[in-house]
Amino acid sequence: MILERINSPKDLKALKESELALLASEIRKELLETVSENGGHLAANLCVVELTIALHRVFDSPEDKFIFDVGHQSYVHKLLTGRREEFRSLRKFNGISGFPKRDESEHDAFGAGHSSTSISAAAGIAAANLLCGKENYTIAVVGDGAFTGGMIYEALNNCSENERLIIVLNDNDMSISPNVGGMSRYFSKDRSSAKYFNLKHGIKRFFAGIPTIGSPLIKASTAVKNVVKKVVMSQNFFEQFGLTYYGPLDGNDEKHLERVFREAKDDKKSCVVHICTTKGKGYAPAEKRPDLFHGVSGFDIESGKIKESSSESFSERFGKIICDQAEKNEKIVAITAAMPDGTGLSRFAKLFPDRFFDVGIAEQHALTFASGMATEGIIPVFAVYSTFMQRAYDQLIHDAALQNLHIIVMLDRSGLVANDGATHHGIFDTAFIPEIPNVTFYSPNSFESLEECFKNAIEANGPVVIRYPKGNDIDLGFMTKDTQFDYCDFGSYPKNAVITYGRLTENAIQSAKICEESGFGTRVISLKTLSPIEIEPIMQALDGINNIVFAEEGIKNGGVGQRLCSMLAERGRLQNTRFIIKAIDGIFPQHGSNNELLSLLGLSAEDIAKAVMNRGVGDEA
Amino acid sequence: MILERINSPKDLKALKESELALLASEIRKELLETVSENGGHLAANLCVVELTIALHRVFDSPEDKFIFDVGHQSYVHKLLTGRREEFRSLRKFNGISGFPKRDESEHDAFGAGHSSTSISAAAGIAAANLLCGKENYTIAVVGDGAFTGGMIYEALNNCSENERLIIVLNDNDMSISPNVGGMSRYFSKDRSSAKYFNLKHGIKRFFAGIPTIGSPLIKASTAVKNVVKKVVMSQNFFEQFGLTYYGPLDGNDEKHLERVFREAKDDKKSCVVHICTTKGKGYAPAEKRPDLFHGVSGFDIESGKIKESSSESFSERFGKIICDQAEKNEKIVAITAAMPDGTGLSRFAKLFPDRFFDVGIAEQHALTFASGMATEGIIPVFAVYSTFMQRAYDQLIHDAALQNLHIIVMLDRSGLVANDGATHHGIFDTAFIPEIPNVTFYSPNSFESLEECFKNAIEANGPVVIRYPKGNDIDLGFMTKDTQFDYCDFGSYPKNAVITYGRLTENAIQSAKICEESGFGTRVISLKTLSPIEIEPIMQALDGINNIVFAEEGIKNGGVGQRLCSMLAERGRLQNTRFIIKAIDGIFPQHGSNNELLSLLGLSAEDIAKAVMNRGVGDEA
Repeated sequence: MILERINSPKDLKALKESELALLASEIRKELLETVSENGGHLAANLCVVELTIALHRVFDSPEDKFIFDVGHQSYVHKLLTGRREEFRSLRKFNGISGFPKRDESEHDAFGAGHSSTSISAAAGIAAANLLCGKENYTIAVVGDGAFTGGMIYEALNNCSENERLIIVLNDNDMSISPNVGGMSRYFSKDRSSAKYFNLKHGIKRFFAGIPTIGSPLIKASTAVKNVVKKVVMSQNFFEQFGLTYYGPLDGNDEKHLERVFREAKDDKKSCVVHICTTKGKGYAPAEKRPDLFHGVSGFDIESGKIKESSSESFSERFGKIICDQAEKNEKIVAITAAMPDGTGLSRFAKLFPDRFFDVGIAEQHALTFASGMATEGIIPVFAVYSTFMQRAYDQLIHDAALQNLHIIVMLDRSGLVANDGATHHGIFDTAFIPEIPNVTFYSPNSFESLEECFKNAIEANGPVVIRYPKGNDIDLGFMTKDTQFDYCDFGSYPKNAVITYGRLTENAIQSAKICEESGFGTRVISLKTLSPIEIEPIMQALDGINNIVFAEEGIKNGGVGQRLCSMLAERGRLQNTRFIIKAIDGIFPQHGSNNELLSLLGLSAEDIAKAVMNRGVGDEA
Repeated sequence: MILERINSPKDLKALKESELALLASEIRKELLETVSENGGHLAANLCVVELTIALHRVFDSPEDKFIFDVGHQSYVHKLLTGRREEFRSLRKFNGISGFPKRDESEHDAFGAGHSSTSISAAAGIAAANLLCGKENYTIAVVGDGAFTGGMIYEALNNCSENERLIIVLNDNDMSISPNVGGMSRYFSKDRSSAKYFNLKHGIKRFFAGIPTIGSPLIKASTAVKNVVKKVVMSQNFFEQFGLTYYGPLDGNDEKHLERVFREAKDDKKSCVVHICTTKGKGYAPAEKRPDLFHGVSGFDIESGKIKESSSESFSERFGKIICDQAEKNEKIVAITAAMPDGTGLSRFAKLFPDRFFDVGIAEQHALTFASGMATEGIIPVFAVYSTFMQRAYDQLIHDAALQNLHIIVMLDRSGLVANDGATHHGIFDTAFIPEIPNVTFYSPNSFESLEECFKNAIEANGPVVIRYPKGNDIDLGFMTKDTQFDYCDFGSYPKNAVITYGRLTENAIQSAKICEESGFGTRVISLKTLSPIEIEPIMQALDGINNIVFAEEGIKNGGVGQRLCSMLAERGRLQNTRFIIKAIDGIFPQHGSNNELLSLLGLSAEDIAKAVMNRGVGDEA
């Protein structure tokens, strides 16, 4: 096996050209075997096998800096940079990350997980090295989907030509779902003219002020011809930013790529290398349905059958709820930032195509676009992963909340998201949403309450945010429902309380059972409304309690626990009552199963029970 | 006077063409008289006089929707839409706002204050109206500077051609400071080819697939020739997004503009109208130095002499400190997002041109670019207004903090910013910064402590954020300095404490004096380190205290007061101690003087004193 001999990029450079095809197929096998077991990103890695080999044969990592946009296509890079043996631990607790990570290897020059940051980071690295007089190269590998995110343009606007910055635009005409909008048309068109140039004019194009492509050269591919015909380009976009342009090239032709990269290297200028690849390359099921094999939880290699969870997810349930409501209320529209499947909106898109807006990886725009719609009486529902909503923090403040506009934000994948890890956990929303005036913030703790919260949101006046986890319905046992929260007692006349919200309610209930068994009667309160908090009903629910543990699957500073604690303190309610917060305290949790992470963070049922009983008040006291 | 007859856009439509020039000069007079008194944005409004007249004569507000990017150029719009009589109250407490505001008038379709949101909002409004079957127009007026912000591209990518969306690109080749980077080159170049088309080919260009401009047509203007020569365009950028393009036009020729707008209106398609205007038009001092007359505090009309504060500002002092440090440490570089003057970096830019990066209105890029530099051992210092830093919240988490990179963010204009109002107050940073792991967060309470904090920041390992107000040095009286905080007693063995930070320390000291006079001995503690808070020294400083008022010029939810309160509560320190937080509680403060706003918010010295004494503990108790 050739792959076994590759312990660093140096070993790769020593290979004969004739060995590379075999290496590529060994890498694909390793990708398939690992991802089919561990889950992860498949299609995007299969398509960059040749690219990653070519880059590491031409450039010298770690002196030359490799940056992967989003980072989910860095598996091959990991295999080739000394992490082959650990590769089977991919995305496992204490195993290697599914994304580039500076802590993990000197070859990971810059971490990622969110889209469209690579050129900014690369520009910074290149500028720094230029300042220090170094002559190394900085390589950013970025997919065409990232070009729907605004940061890319901010970065291109700040690239300079003398920085030895190599931007590899990996164009496979789809990000997580098929791309939309003008930018996608742009690349599609460009791509369609690609073959012409490869065949007739060689690999390098210089425009130098002369319009070289006339309309006859433009051939639309069938998939995009309805938009391409409106857009005609005669000069490359990137050259307008002062960057040399190479391409488009066949991104799965290793030899060809090496040749171009060597040329770009010799040129010593900043440049764009535009390559076209096939998502899922080399594995038929993934080539056929790259969307299904973008991020998978696991699959059978032979049949290509994806392991699917038998139970319904919060995302799926939300998808049903919004379709039901949209049927009754034609003012409801749905917005996604390139995640129609992940957020459960695919059915809505089919049923209400005119009322469905996929804006690309453009959370900032999504929020302000929604706010604009709201001024005209439409009820926009923006479904987005909690971690990506961080991108639209300013727009939520400045466009939605300040004007008190009626928009609804559905925060999917709030809380820990397990194996995706540090860049993807939705652990900040419980802090950054409640600090914004006018926003109502719900954390439903079951499918039933998700529906209730959504109906409330439809009837509301200002902005409403609803958070829910990646995962299935939550078993609430026999809790009593109140407007703002649910509650139930373990033991009669309990003096202890565990307050929590969302998915962690399950652990809170388990912890209360443990406490009760040890003679510590405990009340569990599960908050559904996180902001604004009406304190009087909570004060009543704390009647007789003198020991409170607040447990949250979110960041401690600025979180719900601190807020509630201070509300009680200001009202003198903590004079003879202990208040302890168990939350994510000043760290970024890494990847692993949710249970592994919760244990590590001190949020298991046992941990919460211990916190109650540590200085808790027994029923006898 | 013609202006006196204009009470709504209808009156404007009734005017004869021959009256319009006089009207324009009356408007300019009114702008000069009001802004010279009240302060505000002058140059940007002087240049849109003809544009605003033309738009209101052709389109029908409020049925047609007017949106102004950033919004500082909406004064003329305000004068023409029924706010002529209140115009002299511009930016005053309870007067009209310096920015568009939905609450203020049905003619303000969408509020603004931050850059690059207008096309997103307009796209939302237009899409909503299309869905509702309305046939009105949506007009976004956007300056070329906004095109350095990524949101604009996200929005353009989502504009559709059938929405009657009119994007007026007001090109004056500068935003607050001269534009930088590729995008600016793009517009400059386009502009230089403008005259040709106006003269030879009429006002409307259709490309329809045929490259029409060859290199001979491109003439660089002297100002930008060094960059223009690198960039040659033969087809308009906007048409690639499916939008019809008109222009470039003389934006100060009202008749000409009206003609084009009528044509665009008749066409019923979405389009871009590219106009060129002169900032400060019609007032020689502003035409000469539009940067000085961008935002002014007041000036003498006759001489053009700007009223300047005699005392040094925090921004100016920071500018000196960074230059001193940069002299000693060549790793220090400075980054601004189009605000070199406002943030005090102009001198640095002159002294260290190679180490100065103006990235345009691109806070997201700035943060990630800085993070990239930090990986290579450079110490990037990004100076930015607190309110604009909201744009880079995700990047601070995902790129800087998660990787624990050593960058320094200087948050200028933290806290209230007086007359600029709701969109500009820096009142969220005290909540959104401390929730991010690994970030050290300082709030210096004087010039001396600003320097100390900055020196600490240079020596730090991870990200450091330093916040300071718009304004002058703070009089700390005779406070005792400690590492994390300063303190002093008013009365011996006080049982009361006021804890605060930053500029509000002055009010806290005044409040303690009031309390002491009434027999309530009070200790004042002024925090300099807001995160991480070391609680032990604060517990010691609270020795003997049983009544705490926390006063902060920031949002209450998630703020410093709540955090400190819960830290004390978790340690049982509030068992017999009252804790009250005075902060900005769930509202967006509007515009006015800082003292007016502080009184309104309950943060005057008297208010804080009252809170101490309300249930406070007198020395006799």
